[in-house]
Amino acid sequence: MTEWTSKKIRVRVPATSANVGAGFDCLGFAVNLYTELELELTTEDVFEFEIEGEGSAEISANKNNIVTTSIQKFLSRLKDPESKKIIGMRMKMKNAVPVARGLGSSAAAIVSGIFAANECLDRPMSKDELLNLATEIEGHPDNVAPALFGNFTTNITKTVNDQIFVDSFSFKPKLHLKFIVAVPKFKLSTKKARAVLPRKVPREDAIFNISRVSMLIASLTTGSEKFLADAFDDRLHQPYRLKLIPGMDKVFDAAKKAGAVGVCLSGAGPSLMAFTLYRLRNAGDISRAMYQAFLDNKIRSSTKVLNLDTTGAVVI
Amino acid sequence: MTEWTSKKIRVRVPATSANVGAGFDCLGFAVNLYTELELELTTEDVFEFEIEGEGSAEISANKNNIVTTSIQKFLSRLKDPESKKIIGMRMKMKNAVPVARGLGSSAAAIVSGIFAANECLDRPMSKDELLNLATEIEGHPDNVAPALFGNFTTNITKTVNDQIFVDSFSFKPKLHLKFIVAVPKFKLSTKKARAVLPRKVPREDAIFNISRVSMLIASLTTGSEKFLADAFDDRLHQPYRLKLIPGMDKVFDAAKKAGAVGVCLSGAGPSLMAFTLYRLRNAGDISRAMYQAFLDNKIRSSTKVLNLDTTGAVVI
Repeated sequence: MTEWTSKKIRVRVPATSANVGAGFDCLGFAVNLYTELELELTTEDVFEFEIEGEGSAEISANKNNIVTTSIQKFLSRLKDPESKKIIGMRMKMKNAVPVARGLGSSAAAIVSGIFAANECLDRPMSKDELLNLATEIEGHPDNVAPALFGNFTTNITKTVNDQIFVDSFSFKPKLHLKFIVAVPKFKLSTKKARAVLPRKVPREDAIFNISRVSMLIASLTTGSEKFLADAFDDRLHQPYRLKLIPGMDKVFDAAKKAGAVGVCLSGAGPSLMAFTLYRLRNAGDISRAMYQAFLDNKIRSSTKVLNLDTTGAVVI
Repeated sequence: MTEWTSKKIRVRVPATSANVGAGFDCLGFAVNLYTELELELTTEDVFEFEIEGEGSAEISANKNNIVTTSIQKFLSRLKDPESKKIIGMRMKMKNAVPVARGLGSSAAAIVSGIFAANECLDRPMSKDELLNLATEIEGHPDNVAPALFGNFTTNITKTVNDQIFVDSFSFKPKLHLKFIVAVPKFKLSTKKARAVLPRKVPREDAIFNISRVSMLIASLTTGSEKFLADAFDDRLHQPYRLKLIPGMDKVFDAAKKAGAVGVCLSGAGPSLMAFTLYRLRNAGDISRAMYQAFLDNKIRSSTKVLNLDTTGAVVI
């Protein structure tokens, strides 16, 4: 029996920031910080996984890591019986996305795996099918959608006959934004960050978020700066997560004082995100202010000034 | 002492539909159905109020009607001591907005009063100040904002030192929409329709609305039809109001079956609103289907096919 090996595919997938304040569990955007994955699928019984960069010390290079399990799930969904013979893979990963910090490292890992595998096999799945699968693996679409499509995405998740379907609208804002992220030197699992949320919320808080997210989307899609000041505010998750991130409100205040047009928790945290307009040229000031405010609360952090990623997952 | 009388001003203010499904208490739009008011303010002790059209039989033509009390509130806020001498008014109203049916009749009355009075006095207030005052009188901005500005508006309400401030973003959708409204032959007070709402809502329902309103705003502002199907859906108010409007779900189903791209309660009801795209040319079909579905539930109604009003309050 002759063994078969796919062409070698290298993909690049962006880091992502979910929620964006008021857009809790719906909105997300991609930034220019990347996971790269080189993948070969094969019918040989082989498993190679090299990883360098962020998380290389802690990500298990065995078959239980999320890249591998995502590829296996992808393969198990293919109808072509030939695909069942694919039992081996060779992978090299280069990761620049901080792990478990609220910047979509798991979404980038999942999407890099299934997107690369799909390319190795000449695209048996459409991009929408990849999105549904990635959402199923991740549990929510707000990171995997921008990781796959780039830009900002707003998402609706529906379950029909136990199957997940996601409507994902990807749009490039008409405002030229810069993002300043402060990544504190501690981890926070999404599970822990979700456990602090109440199951019921005051109706007024729901309306608060609806009004802010509406203003945010209207501002971004039309390029209006006039009403941005309150458009990132949230009452459905950030107030509850305040206690999990020492100095969070102080970092927010410092960023705003330095000229940020908005601030929010990146995903479930602990990274904090500030937004500014390119023309204001104050990203450096905001970055320093956020770093210092974390430090004043005895938290060391690293800060990055980021741009929007407009391409999403690509073959490189 | 010589009496003073302002020039005679005639204004036109559109009917409005608030909530738009997912945009509960935030979103609203103006339609081509109008209240017209002719106003003269004077230092004479005189009160004249003629009203014709919708509600003329039931609106009290004394000083307690909402047009008069709104004008009085407007006058009381002016700083110029001369304005205190204005104690009389002559008004003629021509109203085409159904009263207490969820089409913003009270917002149109309030806005027509204060907008006309402001014109009579050569604009002592800015349009934003009129919006804040109208919101204070009405209690929420989602009807008064589109009545004043036209188009769709999304609003954020803030209270600072007991004073109400509204950020209102008015935008003309890039989709050419037609609106079909079915106005049943019974009234429903907003107060009664609010009383059925719970004070706390499941977090998942809040997220449901956030995701739908985000998709709705993104679709309208960019002109994308792709994801409209779910974008009007709501879980925060419509399910609770179902019991107040016999046949509501049946009318919704009928409108969708006839080709409507979305359906919702107009304001707090009882009018029901369907949305379609101009190019589909099915507004007549939808209108007939909604009328029949109400009738099948023993409710008589009148239906109207409406267009967006893009000007808001104007002097005519």
